[in-house]
Amino acid sequence: MTDDSNHGFAEQDLQPVTPEETDEDGEQYHHFFQKTEGHLVATPEASAGANGVQRGLMRLKAAFIGTPLFSKDEIHERLTKVKALAVFGSDAISSCAYATEASLVVLMVAGNGALHISLFTALAVAVLMSMVAFSYRQTVYAYPHGGGSYNVSRQNLGQMAGLVAAAALLLDYVMTVAVSIAAGSFAVTSALNAAGVNITAITASLPPFLNFNVILSLIFIGLITLGNLRGIRESGSIFAIPTYVFIFSFAAMIIVGMIKVFTHSLVPATPPPILQMAQPVTLWLVLRSFSAGAVAMSGTEAISNGVPVFKPNESKNAAATLTVMASLLAIFFVGVSFLSNHMGLVPGDQSIVSQVALAVFGQNAIYYIFQIATMAILVVAANTAFADFPRLSSILARDNYMPHVFGNRGDRLAFSSGILFLGAVSGLLLIAFRGNVDSLIHLYAVGVFLAFSMSDTGMVVHWWKTRGKGWKTSILINGADAILTTSILIIVVITKFAFGAWIIVVLIPMIVPVFLAINRHYARVAEQLRIMPLQMMPQKIEHFVLMPIDDVNYASLRAMSFARTICKDITVLHIATDPVRAEKIKQKMQTYAPDMKLVIMESPLRAFMRPLLTYVEVLHEQHPGGFLTIVVPEFITAHWWERFLHNRTAEHLTQAFKRHPNIAVVNVPYLLKR
Amino acid sequence: MTDDSNHGFAEQDLQPVTPEETDEDGEQYHHFFQKTEGHLVATPEASAGANGVQRGLMRLKAAFIGTPLFSKDEIHERLTKVKALAVFGSDAISSCAYATEASLVVLMVAGNGALHISLFTALAVAVLMSMVAFSYRQTVYAYPHGGGSYNVSRQNLGQMAGLVAAAALLLDYVMTVAVSIAAGSFAVTSALNAAGVNITAITASLPPFLNFNVILSLIFIGLITLGNLRGIRESGSIFAIPTYVFIFSFAAMIIVGMIKVFTHSLVPATPPPILQMAQPVTLWLVLRSFSAGAVAMSGTEAISNGVPVFKPNESKNAAATLTVMASLLAIFFVGVSFLSNHMGLVPGDQSIVSQVALAVFGQNAIYYIFQIATMAILVVAANTAFADFPRLSSILARDNYMPHVFGNRGDRLAFSSGILFLGAVSGLLLIAFRGNVDSLIHLYAVGVFLAFSMSDTGMVVHWWKTRGKGWKTSILINGADAILTTSILIIVVITKFAFGAWIIVVLIPMIVPVFLAINRHYARVAEQLRIMPLQMMPQKIEHFVLMPIDDVNYASLRAMSFARTICKDITVLHIATDPVRAEKIKQKMQTYAPDMKLVIMESPLRAFMRPLLTYVEVLHEQHPGGFLTIVVPEFITAHWWERFLHNRTAEHLTQAFKRHPNIAVVNVPYLLKR
Repeated sequence: MTDDSNHGFAEQDLQPVTPEETDEDGEQYHHFFQKTEGHLVATPEASAGANGVQRGLMRLKAAFIGTPLFSKDEIHERLTKVKALAVFGSDAISSCAYATEASLVVLMVAGNGALHISLFTALAVAVLMSMVAFSYRQTVYAYPHGGGSYNVSRQNLGQMAGLVAAAALLLDYVMTVAVSIAAGSFAVTSALNAAGVNITAITASLPPFLNFNVILSLIFIGLITLGNLRGIRESGSIFAIPTYVFIFSFAAMIIVGMIKVFTHSLVPATPPPILQMAQPVTLWLVLRSFSAGAVAMSGTEAISNGVPVFKPNESKNAAATLTVMASLLAIFFVGVSFLSNHMGLVPGDQSIVSQVALAVFGQNAIYYIFQIATMAILVVAANTAFADFPRLSSILARDNYMPHVFGNRGDRLAFSSGILFLGAVSGLLLIAFRGNVDSLIHLYAVGVFLAFSMSDTGMVVHWWKTRGKGWKTSILINGADAILTTSILIIVVITKFAFGAWIIVVLIPMIVPVFLAINRHYARVAEQLRIMPLQMMPQKIEHFVLMPIDDVNYASLRAMSFARTICKDITVLHIATDPVRAEKIKQKMQTYAPDMKLVIMESPLRAFMRPLLTYVEVLHEQHPGGFLTIVVPEFITAHWWERFLHNRTAEHLTQAFKRHPNIAVVNVPYLLKR
Repeated sequence: MTDDSNHGFAEQDLQPVTPEETDEDGEQYHHFFQKTEGHLVATPEASAGANGVQRGLMRLKAAFIGTPLFSKDEIHERLTKVKALAVFGSDAISSCAYATEASLVVLMVAGNGALHISLFTALAVAVLMSMVAFSYRQTVYAYPHGGGSYNVSRQNLGQMAGLVAAAALLLDYVMTVAVSIAAGSFAVTSALNAAGVNITAITASLPPFLNFNVILSLIFIGLITLGNLRGIRESGSIFAIPTYVFIFSFAAMIIVGMIKVFTHSLVPATPPPILQMAQPVTLWLVLRSFSAGAVAMSGTEAISNGVPVFKPNESKNAAATLTVMASLLAIFFVGVSFLSNHMGLVPGDQSIVSQVALAVFGQNAIYYIFQIATMAILVVAANTAFADFPRLSSILARDNYMPHVFGNRGDRLAFSSGILFLGAVSGLLLIAFRGNVDSLIHLYAVGVFLAFSMSDTGMVVHWWKTRGKGWKTSILINGADAILTTSILIIVVITKFAFGAWIIVVLIPMIVPVFLAINRHYARVAEQLRIMPLQMMPQKIEHFVLMPIDDVNYASLRAMSFARTICKDITVLHIATDPVRAEKIKQKMQTYAPDMKLVIMESPLRAFMRPLLTYVEVLHEQHPGGFLTIVVPEFITAHWWERFLHNRTAEHLTQAFKRHPNIAVVNVPYLLKR
């Protein structure tokens, strides 16, 4: 110990790190803390960690997700309509990659003859789509600062409605990721299947809870999660490419396909199998097929959420983009359903869209590009959910309905907790459903239509309250849509219930109380933390110190020196099981610490912790307003296994008094160097 | 808060619990602490725990192992020769219940004709036994205060030899438990088998790692462990009954058996099976058979350990008991081997001793009593190890070779850690070897003979050093026995190595370094805890307090009040990610705690922990001799799940600075009531 380090802090003060005074010594720390007017600023070096291990971990983290960004560097990019269609539209448009298939799978039980019903599903969804889009255009104008279902429902229908919509949306985002990624993987396996790869054999060699699709899906989710943690924000440029490649190639497929239909040259690559007619076509089956196809509607919400990021005039541009998106989806869905129907295609090892593409393009480079574009837009669609889920979570956290940690921006300014949570949940869902689109799709759509229904109802109330220009027309449009979407919601819930939708139906009423409980908790905490009038504040707390010691040695004397600095009223307690030892301790205390009050407590039953705890309880009962600090010298052993060679009194005491409001346990660490 | 509780501790002092002063208030606590001259005595109530949960757990514990005993109530019973034979002899005498069988199992591969070799094994062991007993009589006289191998080896041959002997003995005690219990269970299953119970069918219905014998064995071990935790100490009375019932019934069996031999009426209950002669009789096979039978020698050590508990004249009585024990074992082992040979019995579903007893007594009550007595003495033998293992462990703990916890007496004055450890390890061993005596026995005997060999060699050195009366004769006896036992040790290791003895051969050199490492650790700790000359002692440590706060609220103001009581030099640090919030905190601090030094540190990368840790590191580097106390208000939530709704700064800080010698983290608990 040098002379320099020995003088008191009271005299020297902590200048280098307090901004008021400067000191030459402190200059060496300027790379950690910069002084500006009135406060310090932590430099990136200070944020990298205080020791080599922490800095190493931070570097490792940076290698994956990039170096931390300053809060001021947040990008507020405004999107053109072209980019916005890519950013917000991919979710909706990509649905045409699996919606036809979902509809067909339901119809398969009624034999090949029933498959044409899927075309009517597609047409119905297209009509529905234009209704919903028309209705949402109104929302976009009414809520230029973002008219998500949570917001619209909460403002117009109250807290509960808002939370129901929020729960529905969060579940729907999870489903978007799971379904899009599963479908994207299916696009890859379909292409591999067309190229002759034996996927079944690969799957057979994997552990039972995995298959090729699941592994591919998990890789995709891992990459998207990492990408979002890095902070690929909604800068349309990256997403524009796959989206527009998909749009153009899908459009090309439909046009070429229609030409081939008229020239009677459209034939499937392999003749579709003959299906057993296990049951007749019933209304129930038709409704189920419709419900399955209705998943195409998911993602329509996205634009209404994102109005503020459009270039001015925001609402007008958003509405225009919404119209284009809905039109594209409707045309694509009807188009691919028509082509599939025309050839009588049957779902199988290859996706329906892949079968159509094969028939239209032939097995050549264009087909493979098309499959890659399909995969890419589905991944982009999943990525949309990775933007939406954390954003909605952060809004819920801000409103105290979700843990505040969801509101914290990570190193790259992304809402890391929400991203990681979504990645984990959707990954588990994919494993649980073995990456099967047709199974997952049963859980989808409930959330979508619940959100639509809440939002539309909210808009009706909104118009009724505000009564602005043309409110009667508006109320009519939103009202009609509310009735429509609510009816479909009911159909979807009933027809999908037994197939998996019950999970969503059960989850929503479970999530909402959790939101409310969290909200109540934060409210109670705020209440309990409110500063009371000044005279009530505990300006000076009665304070005394208890030091249980096992022996008088360097560690305990050191702890006593520490105890002297924090309190004048110190009781040193020795719990004795050996009277000879107790006598020795008494003598040692008289030699080395005669100023301390020593209490020797004999423990004839050899118990140590329990009499000590009782002693503390008795002290506390006698002085309920006082604050007791228990000072314990704690051995920090040089190797982990050596811990087991000592009583871990310090740990036990800390645990025992953790919930005690007026007791603090101070472990004075004594580092065993060897 | 009543008025009474508000006055300071400095004035009121902690009278009720300090013995110097009395106070009427304190009287209500007299049931917890009694005052005697100069110190307090914790009553059983205080040792029962401070709260209802603890007291409930203690009551539950007491229901199993009995209410705690006072240290002064330790019984120091002196044993008569009759009781001592039961206490110390059961281990050795009980070996005749399985030794013949062990020898026969090895010989079976050479066909029925080879089985008679086991008789020669028995005779050789009998001769050996008398040699060892003769040699040990010397030890008993030379070490009247207990002449265990550990003690004799350590004193005469040095630390390493002592530790090798200790490791060998500890392993041997584990094997004694495993083998005796497995053989005891086999006595039960043999009787059940004789009574016609289908044991194989019961075993078939159990999970693969269990069988009927293992379950029975685990029940026995559980009961013995519990019994020993209750503190059935070596009060011979309890053990005398099964031991003497066994001795008399075994003697009766041999006498009646011999009479039947002479009257040519001794025939096996079922004719022994014809064995395939798979290999010829070789010297190797004979030596293996001998090694297997040599396990009968285990337990001879026990009396030499226990000399001090004999009635005076201790050594003479111990020596006499030793002679009786060795004679009984030799006669029984040779006798049962002769009878078995006479009938040409073959090991099988029933133990050899059971087969002999059936032939001698017939299937009647006497047979069943005999089997129960066999089972009982084997359990008593295991119980001997449950006394020996914890006793040796406690000696090793006292000598700093094992964790000190092995030296602590439990509620019932037993060395609880050693008992629990032995119970657990022998139970696992029984499961691993599927409760099979013949497999376990291969691991046995190595430890026994290693301990014999060390002890005898130690005695040779002892006589050489002391050169008392008749030292030359003594050195001759011990020397001859040392050569003999060492030779047998070599035979045992070689012949059993491949069958399991390698485990013991590997374990001993692994255990000894652990003993040494523990010893070094305790020595290093003692060195580091030595009190330095008075002028070097830190009489007053420079002390300052850092309080990181997130907000100024009731909890942080309360923690500040606490901080004021322990130190004058307090820095309140706010790490700011939001300048508006930081400004508010500045204003609040001026209103509510204008006396405190506030440092605002902006963290533009939004990191909190890392800049804080860096700040602390910088403080500490600037003031290496000072002691920093970090005071953190810690929310203690009313429900466990609510913990996840808060940053756990307090926990993180505690962890981060756990190994820092000059930093203590005080969590000032703030109990959220709802």
